[in-house]
Amino acid sequence: MYRAPVNEIAFTLKQVAGLAPDLEQGRYGDLSDDLVDAILGEAGRFASDEIAPLNLPGDMEGAQWNDGKVTMPKGWPELYHRWREGGWNGLSGPEEYGGQGLPLMLNVAANEMWSSASMAFGLGPLLTMGAVEAVEKHGSDALKATYLEKLVSGEWTGTMNLTEPQAGSDLAALRTRAERKDDGTYRIFGQKIFITYGEHDITDNIVHLVLARLPDAPVGTRGISLFLVPKFLVNDDGSLGERNDVYCASIEHKIGIHGSPTCTMIFGDGKGEAGEAGAIGYLVGEENRGLACMFTMMNNARLNVGIEGVGIAEAAYQKARDYAGERKQGRAAAAAAAAGADMSPIIEHPDVQRNLLTMKALTSVSRAICYACANALDRAHTAEGDDARHWQERANLLTPVAKAFSTDIGVEVASIGVQVHGGMGFVEETGAAIFYRDARIAPIYEGTNGIQAIDLVTRKLPLSGGTQMAGYISELRADVEALRTSNLPELGRSADRLESAIDDLEETTGWLQAALAEGRTEEALAGATPYLRLFGLAAGGAYLARGAVADSGAPRRALCRFFAENLVGETAALRSRVTEGATSLAAARTALA
Amino acid sequence: MYRAPVNEIAFTLKQVAGLAPDLEQGRYGDLSDDLVDAILGEAGRFASDEIAPLNLPGDMEGAQWNDGKVTMPKGWPELYHRWREGGWNGLSGPEEYGGQGLPLMLNVAANEMWSSASMAFGLGPLLTMGAVEAVEKHGSDALKATYLEKLVSGEWTGTMNLTEPQAGSDLAALRTRAERKDDGTYRIFGQKIFITYGEHDITDNIVHLVLARLPDAPVGTRGISLFLVPKFLVNDDGSLGERNDVYCASIEHKIGIHGSPTCTMIFGDGKGEAGEAGAIGYLVGEENRGLACMFTMMNNARLNVGIEGVGIAEAAYQKARDYAGERKQGRAAAAAAAAGADMSPIIEHPDVQRNLLTMKALTSVSRAICYACANALDRAHTAEGDDARHWQERANLLTPVAKAFSTDIGVEVASIGVQVHGGMGFVEETGAAIFYRDARIAPIYEGTNGIQAIDLVTRKLPLSGGTQMAGYISELRADVEALRTSNLPELGRSADRLESAIDDLEETTGWLQAALAEGRTEEALAGATPYLRLFGLAAGGAYLARGAVADSGAPRRALCRFFAENLVGETAALRSRVTEGATSLAAARTALA
Repeated sequence: MYRAPVNEIAFTLKQVAGLAPDLEQGRYGDLSDDLVDAILGEAGRFASDEIAPLNLPGDMEGAQWNDGKVTMPKGWPELYHRWREGGWNGLSGPEEYGGQGLPLMLNVAANEMWSSASMAFGLGPLLTMGAVEAVEKHGSDALKATYLEKLVSGEWTGTMNLTEPQAGSDLAALRTRAERKDDGTYRIFGQKIFITYGEHDITDNIVHLVLARLPDAPVGTRGISLFLVPKFLVNDDGSLGERNDVYCASIEHKIGIHGSPTCTMIFGDGKGEAGEAGAIGYLVGEENRGLACMFTMMNNARLNVGIEGVGIAEAAYQKARDYAGERKQGRAAAAAAAAGADMSPIIEHPDVQRNLLTMKALTSVSRAICYACANALDRAHTAEGDDARHWQERANLLTPVAKAFSTDIGVEVASIGVQVHGGMGFVEETGAAIFYRDARIAPIYEGTNGIQAIDLVTRKLPLSGGTQMAGYISELRADVEALRTSNLPELGRSADRLESAIDDLEETTGWLQAALAEGRTEEALAGATPYLRLFGLAAGGAYLARGAVADSGAPRRALCRFFAENLVGETAALRSRVTEGATSLAAARTALA
Repeated sequence: MYRAPVNEIAFTLKQVAGLAPDLEQGRYGDLSDDLVDAILGEAGRFASDEIAPLNLPGDMEGAQWNDGKVTMPKGWPELYHRWREGGWNGLSGPEEYGGQGLPLMLNVAANEMWSSASMAFGLGPLLTMGAVEAVEKHGSDALKATYLEKLVSGEWTGTMNLTEPQAGSDLAALRTRAERKDDGTYRIFGQKIFITYGEHDITDNIVHLVLARLPDAPVGTRGISLFLVPKFLVNDDGSLGERNDVYCASIEHKIGIHGSPTCTMIFGDGKGEAGEAGAIGYLVGEENRGLACMFTMMNNARLNVGIEGVGIAEAAYQKARDYAGERKQGRAAAAAAAAGADMSPIIEHPDVQRNLLTMKALTSVSRAICYACANALDRAHTAEGDDARHWQERANLLTPVAKAFSTDIGVEVASIGVQVHGGMGFVEETGAAIFYRDARIAPIYEGTNGIQAIDLVTRKLPLSGGTQMAGYISELRADVEALRTSNLPELGRSADRLESAIDDLEETTGWLQAALAEGRTEEALAGATPYLRLFGLAAGGAYLARGAVADSGAPRRALCRFFAENLVGETAALRSRVTEGATSLAAARTALA
């Protein structure tokens, strides 16, 4: 069973992602090193002891829909309430509304642990945290007063209602409509699909954030507004009022995250108690500016989905490593050379070791990227002026990589995990299969990984005329240079290999920037996905180098070397895919007929 | 819905894998080009029209266990009977027992189509075909007379009973025991797990081939014997007699292939009708030589599992391509430049094209390898002397690559297929998820892919003192050279890239052979898995080149170039993983603590 890797998480946060210097500088007020450790330790305990045991049973039972109501798996409502009473929902929430106001890094680290313990369980609160952010940043004082405290505490949960059957990656195609009412409220009509935790029996109320279009709105994404639509209206005294006209028509039958209800939501079907048809909604932000509001919450959501990839990878790794330590088959070459004819635990076979080390190295790399992204956000929030702008740009740059690279890693690592288990891995009760199934959604939701790659290339590389990216590459180089000058014999050729990956990153970055500048958009788009992968490997390698310099422990240095000498070499192939692949790709379209 | 790619299959068989020159030389008697096409066409029709529609419903219903009996999904028994009445079970079966005696290549091609249409359905007959082989090659005349005709026609099905809880990859650990009886029969006692189609309601009888150990057998794999254990004993007149003492205790709850019952079989629990406890079994081959018998059938089974990977990849590709042609989101750069504001089918977006072309190219490559392996077997069976030995070695060399490379591709391609579907891919009813779930077993069963890689490096590279492998590499080089000298401008840098991959293959082959010769076994084993992947990519690339020279069609040439300029470059990283990775891997073991 999963045990939260609290020490590893603390090390990555502090020594790799920037928390240690931040604490020294007092960037987060009186937050101390000890308090960080205490919080991580307690989150680790809760994830390991309370959440993880309910993951597989919850998956097998699944969320159940019946006549518009959704019943959650046995024990999950109680688990949720223990969790929120521990204050976990508001860890980084605004203090003004009862949150603890701690750095996002801690929340992201905690989210990793919830995701490892149960991705389906941990997913619900991610949406609530997103709703908190949207209302806090863009909501009116009245909305804040009514909803924020309950959302921050987790007494109510939140949802994001974007997708419609014809509008997934392309939100310009939204059709859900909103009508203005004289009292300043709106009535919402339409259908939304794939709404995570859109309906459940865990809390008394659910607060939907819904994208919709006003009758006189411009076409496309500039005509989308954001509305807050509660399941139950809230009376002036804060008590729950009438049932609003928003219902869950069905839930999806999915590959994984069975405990997380994925709902089709119907707005304005005339079933509410308020008499008139239409779900009552309240504008968040300005009319027709809804997409910008939604994007503020989507950015953090994307980082948190990236963290799901890390969490799944960590859980899959632990499960496979533990199994490989127990399962005996054959005799390892090393053991065979020694006396005795006993079978060896499969962890002693080099091929299994390669699998496990690959899992562990990729998990570490994606964790470092996600935490570095969280650190940039924390610095952006606590800095001012140019400094704040710089760190916000850094976060914007890293967000698509954190999301897409880490979730691809989640799928890859979970698949290797099944493989390490052999036949037992294919059997659900073993508990390795669930990671393979759950992991598969993360590269899809909150913007597919293809969309992330396009975002990275077309919107993030050009930040500050390319200097943000150039500065980032310089930092990565500095880390590898520090590794080189440390002259550690146990690092082998790591510095050469990691530097070569950064060269690849720099070259492809320049190539893409030139392609965009010269209007060769199609070519740049064709290289986006391999470029994002290259970015993740090169950056992740530099982070491993940073850790290997900071920590003299043999395991960390050996893992860095394993990554550098076995895995990062992929960047050379990715480089030519980016810079030379577009021509053959364009020519090969004929092969798809 | 899946449409069998009959023309593509025929082309690969004939122009790439060697069937065309074989037919010209009359290697398979009066088998003509037209007859080949007719058979493939008819198999394609059956797979597309009859099997494919029952795949998803059969998966959702699954095989059901109740009190020792297994009920198959609705319509599957009737489907099976239509299938076997079409003569498909005995396509390559011995003519003496009612089979059609056609080349294995045709059977393998048909198996690809059954696997695409429904891997869970197509899997059962693969086991029957294996049983036919074992009995034909090693069974007594009496066993042949009683069982072969029914197994060849598919009136009865066969199983392979190897795995026990403590003995998976390591068959030396088998405990199932066999007792000699005075009448020349044996009594079998023990438990077997993961027995595919071990029990079902499709046929009247099931013929189990069971590995067990005699009381006086030597320890390890030299003390294993093979027995035929029928579910129902067979009377002298061929009618079914008493129920034998072998029962299905349960079936597994698995990630995928839900329609295929994976059974725990209990032998000798005293429930049979023959009075005395113990399942009645008949020796196949000699006592204590069971493993050798089992391996004859396992080799073909491994190729057929490789073909499952190809089949799943093809089905996943078709599904994704069709969806991408229909689903509209956003405007492709090309379309945006033109007039009009309509959404584009996502197949017009370069990133989606990259995904689809990657799926298609990898599918083609693994198909070519599997068919080349089948061709080698057919030549071995129809040749004599040194020639026969050469082709059998070739088949032995290619079998682990066909199995492991193709099934890894199956998983990879199915995962990309889900991704192309976006959120719909994660919903079971869409029918993309089933490939992702089903594909995952193929790298595990019939010898895990790790075992295949070890087999390739330690047993296959040394064949004929390494000259078999050296000759194979020369052939691959000749294909790439032919591409180069054809001077086709539309092939871009394909020849350079493919040649470079073959250089990598040659270098790593030499490195591994040296490591083995010098007793650096551990290092060779550490590189086995990346080497096998490298082998598959380099060989597959040469086969695409062969096809591109033979067919002047633009799509095939463009696909070859896409593979050469986008995918085969991975071999450089794999090469250093093989030749330099072992040191860092050995050092990094400390990181697994």
